[in-house]
Amino acid sequence: MASRITRSPGIKDVAALAGVSASTASKALNGTGQLREETRVRVREAAEKIGFIADSRGRALASGRSFTVGLITTDSSGRFSIPIMLGAEDALSAGEMALVLCDTRDDPLREHHYLKSLVARRVDGIIVTGRRTEQREPVDVPIPVVYAFSPSTDPRDTSVLVDDSGGAASTVQHLLSLGRERIAHVTGPESHLSARIRATATSRAAAGAFTGEPLYGEWSERWGRHAVDVLLRTHPEVDAVTCGSDQIARGVCDRLRELDRSVPGDVAVTGYDNWSVMAMASRPPLTTVDMELEELGRRTANLLLDAIAGSPHPGPLHLPTRLIPRESTLGT
Amino acid sequence: MASRITRSPGIKDVAALAGVSASTASKALNGTGQLREETRVRVREAAEKIGFIADSRGRALASGRSFTVGLITTDSSGRFSIPIMLGAEDALSAGEMALVLCDTRDDPLREHHYLKSLVARRVDGIIVTGRRTEQREPVDVPIPVVYAFSPSTDPRDTSVLVDDSGGAASTVQHLLSLGRERIAHVTGPESHLSARIRATATSRAAAGAFTGEPLYGEWSERWGRHAVDVLLRTHPEVDAVTCGSDQIARGVCDRLRELDRSVPGDVAVTGYDNWSVMAMASRPPLTTVDMELEELGRRTANLLLDAIAGSPHPGPLHLPTRLIPRESTLGT
Repeated sequence: MASRITRSPGIKDVAALAGVSASTASKALNGTGQLREETRVRVREAAEKIGFIADSRGRALASGRSFTVGLITTDSSGRFSIPIMLGAEDALSAGEMALVLCDTRDDPLREHHYLKSLVARRVDGIIVTGRRTEQREPVDVPIPVVYAFSPSTDPRDTSVLVDDSGGAASTVQHLLSLGRERIAHVTGPESHLSARIRATATSRAAAGAFTGEPLYGEWSERWGRHAVDVLLRTHPEVDAVTCGSDQIARGVCDRLRELDRSVPGDVAVTGYDNWSVMAMASRPPLTTVDMELEELGRRTANLLLDAIAGSPHPGPLHLPTRLIPRESTLGT
Repeated sequence: MASRITRSPGIKDVAALAGVSASTASKALNGTGQLREETRVRVREAAEKIGFIADSRGRALASGRSFTVGLITTDSSGRFSIPIMLGAEDALSAGEMALVLCDTRDDPLREHHYLKSLVARRVDGIIVTGRRTEQREPVDVPIPVVYAFSPSTDPRDTSVLVDDSGGAASTVQHLLSLGRERIAHVTGPESHLSARIRATATSRAAAGAFTGEPLYGEWSERWGRHAVDVLLRTHPEVDAVTCGSDQIARGVCDRLRELDRSVPGDVAVTGYDNWSVMAMASRPPLTTVDMELEELGRRTANLLLDAIAGSPHPGPLHLPTRLIPRESTLGT
């Protein structure tokens, strides 16, 4: 309400109430200078009484740090960068660091402008993230940077990444352990690195059980439905389909049901992403791979804090995924 | 890469290159003091040459402002607050303001801690947002605050809200204009204000065409499917169903198709949210209501900038929604 928007109590108000000079009040609250303990106590009590809050910019200027980190994201739709951002924010806030959000909307000029502005604000470091797992050009700033999800092309930069090969292999190992012997793979566009990496890891892990060629298409339910028609025409013997995303897997399940093939009875299906609105709404709910992006955000933030403290960890770091088994492979 | 993380050029480096004192260099760059124009030019050229970036904290301290706004969100899943945040960030960045993200994860203690920290950082104002349209307690800080999506209980606070009544009414007007005469409503839990507001506005707008009672349930596809069975048993004459969310509407379409009722031939269906992964993947794609949350975020940020500049706009502000017509009412 309007009446709450009043001037905050200042150091002079504290000093007046405690009966000391502003400079003495400041020393008392900062724990500096040569003061009697009773003076310090009186000043602290006065500050408490009138609700004085110290200006943390003073601490920042004195230390040469701003206790602020910038996050550059290209991903305004947010599927992947939002959980990373929330994980980073969680880790940083525990250390009293603020996270400044910069959404470049995939515009290089906008990114350049943000970087200049963050440096001018004297942020202590920058997290750079994006929507694709392809490498990206490093940013050129005189402060520590850590890349999350989208790695830097410079192998000496710190990049925190998802182990997509391991994630794809984990679905195959799960299916083999359930006795499946003819495993197909349906995924997104071949132009996407994540689709290629997952397809390669799937066929390698399945070895002799791999059936047909990876079916590249788009990241959509519609493609999942269509791919079932292709698969059943070319490889009707298939008993499992691993998919590059939960959306594709949901489409695969829907189409198999429409054709009276039971999931997982006739064909087991796995997704990728553990995107709950897809994975849980699918009939049946999807066995899938969780990329643990919030944890990736936390790790990124902690590696950046290390770099700010003078202990960088150069090079890429691949974090493990987690397999989430549900009815689409286990049945009910 | 490690070699990029070097000391930034400082004012002393600029001064040395220009052959002046640090104090003169500072005055030249800030446009203050009594200096000859050729001195200013020489200093600016030196700054440009070595890539000196002025410390914007100096401007901040001098102006008494930090050119920073805090955003408090309770909504870590982000369905509603993420577009609001991105819209706010977009509007603020145009004015060279930085947005500090604070995710309270619905924890009041965490919110209190963030508010103290933002005030200590001398942010110029705060945006408060959440996942529900229910009123919330105002925050008690001595700086301007604007509430987005979740209004403050204090009617003198600035709250920027969705016109949910208008949104629900727009779906009914659309259906009536298409000649539908028996309109049912399926929505989320009755304990949610947004569900009650939309149900009330729907029955009022439909008047004599309203069929049965609003069916309250949960925000899920499963409930949408189940509600179709209830509706066809109790009101088999229904020729349109308006739904409180796209998830519910998608479930309604799926179940109608399974029962060989055509959409929209036999029954027209509308959603709410324009959540593309639901609305576009639905068969058929959904006519729905877009809450224009990114625009809501922009408006919120601009109202906050007005308040920071000394011109607050007290009271709630309801922004219009937008009807998006698609195949679920129009056919192909």
